[in-house]
Parts: sequence; C-alpha cells; structure tokens
Amino acid sequence: MISATAFAPATVSNVACGFDVLGFALEAPGDEVTARVAPSGVHGVIITDIVGDGGRLPRDAARNTAGVAVLAFLTTLGERRGVSLSIRKGLPLAGGLGGSAASAAAAVVAVDALLEARASVETLIACALEGERLGAGSAHADNIAPCICGGLVLVRRPSPPDVLRLPVPAGLTAVVVHPDLEIETARARAMLGESVPLSDAIRQWANVGALVHGLHRADFAVIGRALEDTIAEPRRAALIPGLAVIKRAAAEAGALGCSLSGSGPSLFALCASAEVAARVGEAMTSAVGTEIGGDSQTYISPIAHQGARILSACAS
Amino acid sequence: MISATAFAPATVSNVACGFDVLGFALEAPGDEVTARVAPSGVHGVIITDIVGDGGRLPRDAARNTAGVAVLAFLTTLGERRGVSLSIRKGLPLAGGLGGSAASAAAAVVAVDALLEARASVETLIACALEGERLGAGSAHADNIAPCICGGLVLVRRPSPPDVLRLPVPAGLTAVVVHPDLEIETARARAMLGESVPLSDAIRQWANVGALVHGLHRADFAVIGRALEDTIAEPRRAALIPGLAVIKRAAAEAGALGCSLSGSGPSLFALCASAEVAARVGEAMTSAVGTEIGGDSQTYISPIAHQGARILSACAS
Repeated sequence: MISATAFAPATVSNVACGFDVLGFALEAPGDEVTARVAPSGVHGVIITDIVGDGGRLPRDAARNTAGVAVLAFLTTLGERRGVSLSIRKGLPLAGGLGGSAASAAAAVVAVDALLEARASVETLIACALEGERLGAGSAHADNIAPCICGGLVLVRRPSPPDVLRLPVPAGLTAVVVHPDLEIETARARAMLGESVPLSDAIRQWANVGALVHGLHRADFAVIGRALEDTIAEPRRAALIPGLAVIKRAAAEAGALGCSLSGSGPSLFALCASAEVAARVGEAMTSAVGTEIGGDSQTYISPIAHQGARILSACAS
Repeated sequence: MISATAFAPATVSNVACGFDVLGFALEAPGDEVTARVAPSGVHGVIITDIVGDGGRLPRDAARNTAGVAVLAFLTTLGERRGVSLSIRKGLPLAGGLGGSAASAAAAVVAVDALLEARASVETLIACALEGERLGAGSAHADNIAPCICGGLVLVRRPSPPDVLRLPVPAGLTAVVVHPDLEIETARARAMLGESVPLSDAIRQWANVGALVHGLHRADFAVIGRALEDTIAEPRRAALIPGLAVIKRAAAEAGALGCSLSGSGPSLFALCASAEVAARVGEAMTSAVGTEIGGDSQTYISPIAHQGARILSACAS
C-alpha cells in the first residue's frame, strides 16, 4: 500500500459505574487518519497536517497521541520505514468523547493496513494505548478498546490487554451531549485522589457486576439501577454546572441512566429504544442550554457494532 | 403450625473479587433451627437450646444472631405471639463459612413456616440481615442472600435487598477447606481500613465484571482470570499461615481460582468439574495440613441450587 485512511469513532468511557474499565463506541462522529509511507531517508513518524483542531494539537509526532501510537506500533513491528500521518479531527478536544483515543486508534489501524501488518487486536490496542497515555496521563484502555473493537467492552486489564466484549441488548441506544466546555482529562483525574472510601468502592463493583448481568439478560431495569457512579461523578460534579438538573431531565424523559462521558464535559445517557433516545436527547440538550449555555452538539447512536476501520487504501 | 425445622447451608462470600457483594451456597454442611410457638404469656424470642457450639454462643436472644433475626421478623410481621428456637450448629464458629448467616436464615425461614407468614424473599433477607449485623459488625448480605436464595448471587444493594441470581455453568464445583483456626469477622474487617487505593479498586471492579461475564458465557478461562482479590485477601493474608502455598497447591491441581471464604480462615476454590475438585480438595487439604496443621475439614459441593428450606413442619 502507498496510503491507507482509517476512521475511528467517538467512545463513551466509564459508563457510570465502570471507571477505567467500561466503554462503548458510537457510530459517529469520529477522527480520520491517512497514513503514507514516508520518503526514503525519513524514519519514524511525521505528521504532515491536522485539520479540525483549530491548530491546537502538537504537530511534533513525539508529542501527538497518534504519532506516539504509531511510533510504538513501528517499534513493535520492527519496521524501519518511516510513516507520515494526515489527521482529520472530527471529535472535539478535551470533550470526553475519546478524541485522543480515536486519533491513536485510527492511526495504528491505518498504518496496519498501509504496511499490511495484520497485527492482532491486542497489539493494536497496546500501541494505541501508548498514545492515550500521553493524553490522559495514565494508560487506561476504556476508550481505546471500544474504539478499536467496537461494541460495549469491559477492559479486565489494560496491559497486556484483556478485553471482553459484552452483549448489547436490542434497542439499547446512546445519547451524547457535548456542551460548550472543555475538561482536561489529566486535571479531572487529579480530582479523584489516590484512594477512595471502601464503601463507595463496594457499591461501584456491585453496580459493575449488575450492569454486566443486566446486559446479558437484556434486563433494562437492572441496567438502569446499575448505571450509578459512586467514584468519579460525585468528585467531578463541580466541573459541570447544573449536572443534577441535566441528569434529572434525562431520567424524566425515560433514560435508563445518565452520567459523564469519560471525564466530561460530555454527558451520555443510555435508553431502551431509539424513540426514547430521541426524547432524552431533546430533554438533555434543552437542559444543557439552560444550565451551561453556548453551543452544544447532540449525538444519538446505537452502540456501534464496528470500531476503527479502513475507509480507503491505495495500492499504487 | 406448632413447630417447623429449617436447614440453611454454608455459604462462601466475597468469592475472591466480590468483597461484600458476591456469595454462593454449598449443599452441606449447614445449621438447623426448630421454631415453636412459645407458651402464651411469653413474648418475643426465647432460645431453648443450642447444640454443636460447645456452649459458646449466647443463649440470650437479643445477643444471638438467630434471636435478633427472628425478633426483627416478628416486628416486621406485627406478630404478638412469642417464638422459641432450638438451634443445631453444623457450621463452625468464626470459620468463614457463613455460620451466623446460616443460623439467622434457618431461624427466619423456620418462623416463616411456623406462622404461615409467606414473607417475601426480600423480607426474609432483610430480617436475617439484622442478625448478621450483630455477628459481623456491619450489614453485608453476601452470606445471607445466597443462604436464603441458594445459587451464586450478586448483592447489588443490601438494604433494601437488590439481589441478582447469576448463572452457574454446568460442572462448576466448589472446594472448601476449613482449617483449625478461628478468625473473628469484625477483627478481619478492621484490617481493611476505611479506604482503599483507587488502582486496587479499579482492578476489583474489572474482575467483578469479568466474573459475571464469564459465568454467563460459561467461559472457565475468564472465570479463572477474574478470581483475583485485590482488596481483602492481600490485607488479611497474614491471618492464614502459608496462604500463598495453599493457593499455589490449588492452582497446580487445576483450580480456576482459590481465595479466602468470607473473612477466612476457610479457603475456597472453584473448579470446572467434580473430578478436578476432587484433586484440588486433596491438594488443598494436604497443603493446609503442612502449613497450618491441626484438624481440617474439606467439603466438595456443586453450587447449591436451593438455599434455606423447611425440613419438617408439625401442624398438631
């Protein structure tokens, strides 16, 4: 191949009770990365252009999540050729929609096709995770894993990746509202501290178990009860003006649950059907408008079956 | 009815990763409680006799787990008649096999039959839990719930009880070894402290999710990887001489996982078949003999489908 373009979708991580271990993929929006073999004499990774970031992302590959991910991938492959990347950001920066994960995932998937490497999913995740580590300050795979695999996944261990794909009941639909705010992941993580009350942690793992059980049983009542975050959301609530009001609006419109997407500011809700999701989307958008103001974007999507994928590849 | 006798089985709580939220029932051993309507003029609960405890359990109903559970049950029912209890302990005291839960569960189930109350499972659990609170120093339902319901259960919330029954893959067999030690539950809880490192907690809820997923998929490899306790076992390991040696013996004999049963000293292992369980039972018993010495009891049992139940009832 002389070039390959990959798309990687937005992802919702944490999913209320699953801090650092649960995530799911949306169908759209997402990031696109085109990879080309660099001219001979160029080693490693160069970033030729980035569009859609307002000029804010580093063009230096060693400081860019996609660049770092591809550097790790080339090292893993023992590849000596250099690669150039062209990045089209469809996801907001610091939006809580897995933007850094999507760029890293699209980049390694594009390079995998470019070099016809056919690397395992575990290798793709492990390398993309190196990019994520740069953005988030720690290597958690709850965006990367669903971004690459699609679906709703549980990351039992990030390294080496032990990723379990959970069943998605028919009808389950996500609403995501991205308000006009930015939250740096590293700052949001710092708000959590190094330890948590045992009683909060016990409730969290009870809810994770219940959520997995509810997904297997397609029991929306259990799923709804389990979508409770006793760890991250209470400690980050102050970052989102009117969070309680927005959550109440989602619940009153019929959502199973509503919480922060990743470290926010985006908020997600899960709903039992597309019809309910449409109502919940309106209610949340309206509440975000009242409580936060500014422009917001609302996405309604089933849990995407497919994750990062090749859009086009050019062999000559 | 003028008398009713109930049996309630031993239970393994925590189940490695599920501190305070996961538990399963064995078929045997267990406790038996016979309840009779007390002579008129006697109110509340009296304990007429206890056998099998070496005289160590309180005969004062207000200080006995079974007595407290039945007092709570009579109050809930608005029952004015008094009840007498006769308790036959089949479970060791402070053994980590849910002995206090079994006495409380057998007592409320016996009294439910005696008074033909037909209380809901939630009511039986809630009242038995009042007895457990006396024994354990806190109200966690991961012994009470499987003791009453049978099976392998997840307690999403103890109060009001939100108990989910998990699927049990064919072949799954428990080994429990009770060494010649006693550990007071309240003391073992105090070793945990009030807070835990966030990183340990994240691993714990990843494992709970993976275990529930593995049970639904009947995937013994996932179940095995998930049977890891990052919270209680590391902090209580010093209570069990040679714990690492005993765990290694179980693993080498083919166990999916091995950890403390409740707060110990009993140890459990889960195995993919009765044949493997027989080998694991021999290996663990031998290792306990070498590392701890004294007399130990070994039980091998499938996860019991049925929990506490009436053995006999006398209407006249």
